Amino acid sequence: MKNNYIKLCNIQKKLYRLSHARSFLNWDRSTMMSSNGNKARSESLAEITSFMHELLSKKNIKKLILNSEEEDLNHIELANLREIKRSWLRKSVLPKKLIIKSQISKSNCEFEWRVQRKNNDWKGFLKNFKEVVKYSQEEAKILSDALNISAYDALMDRYDPGLKTSEVDKLFDQIKKWLPTLISKASQRQNRQKPITLGHSFNRVKQKKLCLDVIKLLGFNFEKGRLDESLHPFCAGVREDIRITTRFNKGTFLNSLFAAIHETGHAQYEQNLPTTLFDQPVSNSRSMSIHESQSLFFEKQIGCNPNFVRRISPLIKKYFGDKPELNHANIFSLVNSVKPSFIRVDADEVTYPAHIILRYEIEKDLINCNVKAEEVPSMWNEKMADYLGLNTSGNYSDGVLQDIHWPGGQFGYFPCYTLGAIYAAQWFYFAKQEIRNIEQVILNGNLTSIFDWLNTNIWSHGSILSTKSLTKKACKGKLLNVKYFKNHLENRYLN
Amino acid sequence: MKNNYIKLCNIQKKLYRLSHARSFLNWDRSTMMSSNGNKARSESLAEITSFMHELLSKKNIKKLILNSEEEDLNHIELANLREIKRSWLRKSVLPKKLIIKSQISKSNCEFEWRVQRKNNDWKGFLKNFKEVVKYSQEEAKILSDALNISAYDALMDRYDPGLKTSEVDKLFDQIKKWLPTLISKASQRQNRQKPITLGHSFNRVKQKKLCLDVIKLLGFNFEKGRLDESLHPFCAGVREDIRITTRFNKGTFLNSLFAAIHETGHAQYEQNLPTTLFDQPVSNSRSMSIHESQSLFFEKQIGCNPNFVRRISPLIKKYFGDKPELNHANIFSLVNSVKPSFIRVDADEVTYPAHIILRYEIEKDLINCNVKAEEVPSMWNEKMADYLGLNTSGNYSDGVLQDIHWPGGQFGYFPCYTLGAIYAAQWFYFAKQEIRNIEQVILNGNLTSIFDWLNTNIWSHGSILSTKSLTKKACKGKLLNVKYFKNHLENRYLN
Repeated sequence: MKNNYIKLCNIQKKLYRLSHARSFLNWDRSTMMSSNGNKARSESLAEITSFMHELLSKKNIKKLILNSEEEDLNHIELANLREIKRSWLRKSVLPKKLIIKSQISKSNCEFEWRVQRKNNDWKGFLKNFKEVVKYSQEEAKILSDALNISAYDALMDRYDPGLKTSEVDKLFDQIKKWLPTLISKASQRQNRQKPITLGHSFNRVKQKKLCLDVIKLLGFNFEKGRLDESLHPFCAGVREDIRITTRFNKGTFLNSLFAAIHETGHAQYEQNLPTTLFDQPVSNSRSMSIHESQSLFFEKQIGCNPNFVRRISPLIKKYFGDKPELNHANIFSLVNSVKPSFIRVDADEVTYPAHIILRYEIEKDLINCNVKAEEVPSMWNEKMADYLGLNTSGNYSDGVLQDIHWPGGQFGYFPCYTLGAIYAAQWFYFAKQEIRNIEQVILNGNLTSIFDWLNTNIWSHGSILSTKSLTKKACKGKLLNVKYFKNHLENRYLN
Repeated sequence: MKNNYIKLCNIQKKLYRLSHARSFLNWDRSTMMSSNGNKARSESLAEITSFMHELLSKKNIKKLILNSEEEDLNHIELANLREIKRSWLRKSVLPKKLIIKSQISKSNCEFEWRVQRKNNDWKGFLKNFKEVVKYSQEEAKILSDALNISAYDALMDRYDPGLKTSEVDKLFDQIKKWLPTLISKASQRQNRQKPITLGHSFNRVKQKKLCLDVIKLLGFNFEKGRLDESLHPFCAGVREDIRITTRFNKGTFLNSLFAAIHETGHAQYEQNLPTTLFDQPVSNSRSMSIHESQSLFFEKQIGCNPNFVRRISPLIKKYFGDKPELNHANIFSLVNSVKPSFIRVDADEVTYPAHIILRYEIEKDLINCNVKAEEVPSMWNEKMADYLGLNTSGNYSDGVLQDIHWPGGQFGYFPCYTLGAIYAAQWFYFAKQEIRNIEQVILNGNLTSIFDWLNTNIWSHGSILSTKSLTKKACKGKLLNVKYFKNHLENRYLN
């Protein structure tokens, strides 16, 4: 008998169906919605979200969970129960009033940030940001007590269940040791031979066709999804129908192309999550770090691989002509050029970790109440000079105001990006152990064996295994290790 | 004090927000959804619908309504209460079991109908259709008892509140008297001079651009909506963000253009409904007859008007070249050609009422239990021969199986189409009384004065007035009268 467990699953099923609605309403907002539609859309989304909260905060859930733990469940059901419990626990300990106040502070801060960023208005931003930090600290404290982990860990746990500061510190400290040297060596090396820049304009329709050709090659399943345009590229929808977007920049097709490749990594993960128990948390993606590892695997390990660039070069020439700047060697140089810069989202693969470590160190101190919101810009300037040799003093727009994460209260997300990059390099290393001719496979563009490896080792597991078990299973018993990432970077940028 | 009324309004607000979600999920299904997405989409929609039913079937609603009736409400609030009560009454009297069984029978019948129609399979269809008829009769009977009106009236009331068989009979009987003569006269007259057919293929992108130009001219507000493509043209979304669609046929741009014009009528109505109490039933469109009157006003009264065709002729030539078949006189002849045909949705304005009257007479008898489902094809054949001189014997695909309405259980909807056409002609007549130079206005394409008339007399009223009061207010005290429609047809097709 597992009556209690089944009741829990039925609630999850309802949540799955409602989150379906939420996901598409959000997608529509970013891709299709008319300018006048936002207020009604926000209200509709709030209504659905509030209904979902009601379902989750029903009083009998705790009892159902406790009783389910006594029931006769198989290992997948147990994993599902673990995920249900985790998510319920996180939601149930936070007082409703705090959730609402926190949500409002984030909405306000994010809304005004859009203008403040443009105006370099740190002072204006700080007023709202202090509220966001305050409520995030309160949330973190309550979660910290309930989960018996540090405040910042309690926030990271949202995005990467079980991830601890101690692990991230260790990984990032290692990176900090060799990254500055690597950046300067790679830059120097590239300075010797500069690529030809893309000196003309690229038709939007052709850019989209190129994206479609390439993501098809990368296994995007068009029966289970589509590609559209939005201001910022993203991946949304549900595994049955994944919506990825890209943005078209007239001056270069590389932005739209590599954004589409990146989102295809997210999409393939979602499109290939387990179909059994598809409406249960156990079938969700494992974590945002693992999610980013898929997008970065597709973008950096495959997409920017010289053999892949060689493979898609004829497609590029088909749409944009046989010009010297479109030769594969030049495209490879363009997409892999290393240069310290202010903006994280435009940063290359080598300098990117510096952007993340900087943010991680600041937000960790912020959430653990070791620094105040006022101190963030000076910390930023110091670290920016230290890690990337750039001066951001007084330039808030290209500094602390550049990301949506902090105004949106998404503390704990940033490390996932670089963990994703490390995982991606490690997956590639271990995939290569099994697919000996992997470079030839990439050159041929018949990537099935690579997809099979990812499916067997990552996608098909959903959240059945913990992140650590998943990693060990995929990597012959090894846990996450920075060395694979370091080797990848050295191999690509110094050889 | 109006505490009870306010509580009712809050429930309506929730329903409005949830129907927002439902509307866009449905729109997405018809325009964007991946082929694999349907099951998850249906389940999500069912979840939201079931939540809406829960809200509506809460036990305290009856008490809230009764108490509200004692509260101090202004005339708009009273109208709102009337609409809330009407919709609650219709929903509360039907047993949940019957609703579910009926819904399943319709889903099944509609689903299998898609294949059966192609295969001319009346026998297969009949099996499911009998179920649909049975449950629709049961529903109609219960509603009939509760509302103290006839069974068929109880179903029409869904689409056109308060509409009675006696009125429709009277209007349709009048039409039947003069329609056959009008059809034959118009056909004969057109036989004397046939238009040049459109003999080549029309680029889809250009067709869309033409549609956008023309619906802009017709006042479609692109800040509150958009135009997309779907298999069947429709209007969906919410008044804040109306989504209309059209379909592109390579062989003629006229289909996509006039479908877009038709849907723009629906869209303008929705985009201009009252903004006060926007989330309450009193601000909804008055009825489906009035809705169709707007789409047909735009399509037939304006769109097919010779002066409007003359106005848009340069736009047509801009996209498709200056060819003789694209001259305004030829386009006018093409869009206004009269010929009895099998398929309702392809029928011209003159023969269309015959298609509707035929369906109305059959479904009325069906719902009032005067005929059996088995007898429908023979009735159809007889009436088709009688009204349009066509033989549909054995041809079910182009006969009784052609419409989605019956497999979907939408009995009572058909009369709205022809009532809409009659209303549209009457609106035009009375608008002309105020806008004396209306033909010049149409020729100039500056249609603001016409939109103003529609806004003042129809759009801005939402559901505040009953249909009869709305009509009388717009038409100097006159109720709906077929003579305006007859005059319009004679004027356009016989002069």
